[in-house]
Amino acid sequence: MIPYQHTVQYYETDQMHIVHHSNYIRWMEEARVHYLAQLGWGLDRLEELGAVSPITALDVQYKRSALFPQVITIHVTLTKLTGVRLYLHYVMENPDGEVVFEGDSEHCFTDGAGRIFRLKKDLPGFYEALRARLPQAQEKP
Amino acid sequence: MIPYQHTVQYYETDQMHIVHHSNYIRWMEEARVHYLAQLGWGLDRLEELGAVSPITALDVQYKRSALFPQVITIHVTLTKLTGVRLYLHYVMENPDGEVVFEGDSEHCFTDGAGRIFRLKKDLPGFYEALRARLPQAQEKP
Amino acid sequence: MIPYQHTVQYYETDQMHIVHHSNYIRWMEEARVHYLAQLGWGLDRLEELGAVSPITALDVQYKRSALFPQVITIHVTLTKLTGVRLYLHYVMENPDGEVVFEGDSEHCFTDGAGRIFRLKKDLPGFYEALRARLPQAQEKP
Amino acid sequence: MIPYQHTVQYYETDQMHIVHHSNYIRWMEEARVHYLAQLGWGLDRLEELGAVSPITALDVQYKRSALFPQVITIHVTLTKLTGVRLYLHYVMENPDGEVVFEGDSEHCFTDGAGRIFRLKKDLPGFYEALRARLPQAQEKP
Repeated sequence: MIPYQHTVQYYETDQMHIVHHSNYIRWMEEARVHYLAQLGWGLDRLEELGAVSPITALDVQYKRSALFPQVITIHVTLTKLTGVRLYLHYVMENPDGEVVFEGDSEHCFTDGAGRIFRLKKDLPGFYEALRARLPQAQEKP
Repeated sequence: MIPYQHTVQYYETDQMHIVHHSNYIRWMEEARVHYLAQLGWGLDRLEELGAVSPITALDVQYKRSALFPQVITIHVTLTKLTGVRLYLHYVMENPDGEVVFEGDSEHCFTDGAGRIFRLKKDLPGFYEALRARLPQAQEKP
Repeated sequence: MIPYQHTVQYYETDQMHIVHHSNYIRWMEEARVHYLAQLGWGLDRLEELGAVSPITALDVQYKRSALFPQVITIHVTLTKLTGVRLYLHYVMENPDGEVVFEGDSEHCFTDGAGRIFRLKKDLPGFYEALRARLPQAQEKP
Repeated sequence: MIPYQHTVQYYETDQMHIVHHSNYIRWMEEARVHYLAQLGWGLDRLEELGAVSPITALDVQYKRSALFPQVITIHVTLTKLTGVRLYLHYVMENPDGEVVFEGDSEHCFTDGAGRIFRLKKDLPGFYEALRARLPQAQEKP
């Protein structure tokens, strides 16, 4: 998978002269959208199938400050997949290769009205595309 | 009409140590939503009636920098109303009563699929509530 | 301490018709700023003393969707205080009293150039004001 | 000059299922930063020289809705240059080549403490780089 690259924007800085911490949460989304699109399952395709993807949890560590106008490289890996949930890990690096941010996100998929999708049954193609990205140990349950 | 008050948030600042200019556009929306709600026609009520309100133009002047954690007072006035469009004027003041921003916005109302509402016919109650707010000269066409 | 109230803004929604998840991170900041200001130690006062407060970690759970134009009530509690770090817990409720979000944040204080403040020594008044807010068990180390 | 491209992000949409209007103001900045960097005068270089660039006015028209995940192409042209101010024009197109947005911005340059730079005298290299981009008629005053 090709890592995602985000160029820090001026409007993402705050008066500490660094990127405001809420923006990394948005960059996680940018990188996740890019990751799923590379799998052939962009959010726009999922929405056409009636599935939206609310986030259910985040756990993140801020290691260094990202600065304007750095290009930040974001590596996304799928760490876990259950019948209803998706777990992704993110590592963000500055142009010197230093880690600025690490984090995990947890997602489910719903019909927008609250019904939670069973991925294997409701979105089998998507489920298989994800399963193929799992680390070896988890591939053979 | 009661003016709207917005407390400047830290995440609204940028590395110039002032509020980023894009946020005033958001405060115009906050003040507009508050203005319409005072008329009894909040955006939520309009959406229940099938009407969304895209913005069609903005013309704004930045006079002074707003700073964290100032409370900004925003005065909204209806300046013009046509069969399909609404024109609002905004003046924003800092706690010393100095004008930090002035601007105008232009809006129409649509069904979300592109059809433009004729306010008088499609939303008569809303149209009348707005007309009553017009400056005298415009009240008698 | 008085809980903080945030009115959901239209610009905080996304095309899932709910509040975008990144905004809760900003509301944590709004509530934290309000909490510290109530203690008499607003971020503006800390910055005048040369101290800025980068966030070092977040761990959050999204329980329900917040919707426009709900008023969200945010309860902040200090859960832990070390020589250099501050830990806060947040519970956000919708107008029906249902929890929409819970989370924790971790902060340090620096001089903006990387030097980390020892709270007890470098900001003794602030340290004491915080210590007085700690739950009983932690008050007597 | 190479046009700027912005990929619409999910977090930029609102519950009308279109891009929230405040984001185009941010894209104007993205395109302007890219434009100045191409001239060799990125905002980071200007800030190293002690010059920040507050915006003084905006005048914009929203023509069509930009949608997730479109790639928007942004053309920037310098329309006017005075001793202290810079005027830029922006045209944004969707992937079908339709204009979604047009606008103008006006800027000055200050030392961050309020003193306004005389571009010709205070930033002569920048002034010359800009002047070379002016339309013919304005080049020979």
